[in-house]
Amino acid sequence: MIPENHPRAESLRVRDRLVECLRRGIVVEQGLIAHGRGEAFDYLLGERTTMHAREAIRAAVAMMLLAEHPVISVNGNVACLCARDVVRLASILNARIEVNLFYRSYERERAIEMLLRENGAEMVYGVGERASMSIPELMSERRRVDRDGIYMADVVLVPLEDGDRTEALVRMGKKVIAIDLNPLSRTARSATITIVDNVTRAVPLMVDMASRLRGASIDDLHAIVNSFSNAGNLEASLAVIRDGVERLGGGEVGSS
Amino acid sequence: MIPENHPRAESLRVRDRLVECLRRGIVVEQGLIAHGRGEAFDYLLGERTTMHAREAIRAAVAMMLLAEHPVISVNGNVACLCARDVVRLASILNARIEVNLFYRSYERERAIEMLLRENGAEMVYGVGERASMSIPELMSERRRVDRDGIYMADVVLVPLEDGDRTEALVRMGKKVIAIDLNPLSRTARSATITIVDNVTRAVPLMVDMASRLRGASIDDLHAIVNSFSNAGNLEASLAVIRDGVERLGGGEVGSS
Repeated sequence: MIPENHPRAESLRVRDRLVECLRRGIVVEQGLIAHGRGEAFDYLLGERTTMHAREAIRAAVAMMLLAEHPVISVNGNVACLCARDVVRLASILNARIEVNLFYRSYERERAIEMLLRENGAEMVYGVGERASMSIPELMSERRRVDRDGIYMADVVLVPLEDGDRTEALVRMGKKVIAIDLNPLSRTARSATITIVDNVTRAVPLMVDMASRLRGASIDDLHAIVNSFSNAGNLEASLAVIRDGVERLGGGEVGSS
Repeated sequence: MIPENHPRAESLRVRDRLVECLRRGIVVEQGLIAHGRGEAFDYLLGERTTMHAREAIRAAVAMMLLAEHPVISVNGNVACLCARDVVRLASILNARIEVNLFYRSYERERAIEMLLRENGAEMVYGVGERASMSIPELMSERRRVDRDGIYMADVVLVPLEDGDRTEALVRMGKKVIAIDLNPLSRTARSATITIVDNVTRAVPLMVDMASRLRGASIDDLHAIVNSFSNAGNLEASLAVIRDGVERLGGGEVGSS
């Protein structure tokens, strides 16, 4: 049991949840290592959603509301950490949910599908034989996608994706929205819109934003998307991390 | 299989080794998350041993050569990633090796002991009933140490330790040498000497350094230790990380 007043209680609870998901076959071991990398960047960001991430969330939700076929791509870590909010977001945005795994196995796809269904998803794409189409230029199992999901999507939300995949989706002409705590990663740099934030904070905020923007006019949504610069936003997030190194180091190291 | 020419081949091999060690019961799930955190800091450091880490290694080895009862504390990740070099280092320094786990179980202690023995260790402390003494102020199983190991040690090398334990050892009057990729961590700040480096690079370098310094005079070893400032060294390592954020971000984010 983690004491409620522990300064890192939330972070410790998230770790425990991932460990539990590993045991249930939803998350793979490599997903735990990837989570640790994210934790380090989150720590430098101050473990909070920055103003810049909020701007990226706004633009991302507007882009998804303008999409013909928005799809949310879900891997093990995303399912484990925010299944319920992914289902809510998909419902508000009329987006499809597709299971898309780096380390693919039918058992894991099914376990993730079940978790999404338990959290209210009616239809889940990309599982088993449904994933019959290929993303060009990607090797092996990683390129399989659902004809009625990512393959036909014009906008794909990929919380926690790797660089190769993100680049391949962009080359297919899709608009890609990534959530990545490392503004320096290839994913962050190649996505159309990058939300530099923890998925456990960003996805609930996307749900709120979707509720607020869903009544907006097409023109307003276009204006939001067009006024957003991903390069500028990444630069601003990077500055927060740089300041984080200063802030966390400030004087304390020297005085110990 | 990881292609030899993959830019991150070494990092990917290390991940695979940890996953294998998890399956063999040497590493715990939380160890994978901790490894991921380290990877992020290593990435910002440039994945190389800095000049500052080399200085810390020199001082650390000198301190261990001067010790009456040096002990190397080994956890799952350390055993998995550098069992052979830990055994070599212990042999050159006449140091004892103690298994000391955050998530303690007899099976895991035994698995780690076996791995150390396969790599040449003749005696391994801290396993099972041997760990009968307590570190004051630490809760539960984490405080159990070996009377003939850490309990009587004057200098303890703790590659990959947490802040609570490091602080408790320092309060017991021991000199603590930590290896930690995060110069901002409580471990890094409370240790007597902190080597800000990846254990997979630092421990082999400690072995080399121990071979070189083992013939040095007591006076020379004292001079090396006395001329080392941990606060100054941490500050210098932090500056490398800060520069890493600049270097990795420099222009590339803005131009994408």
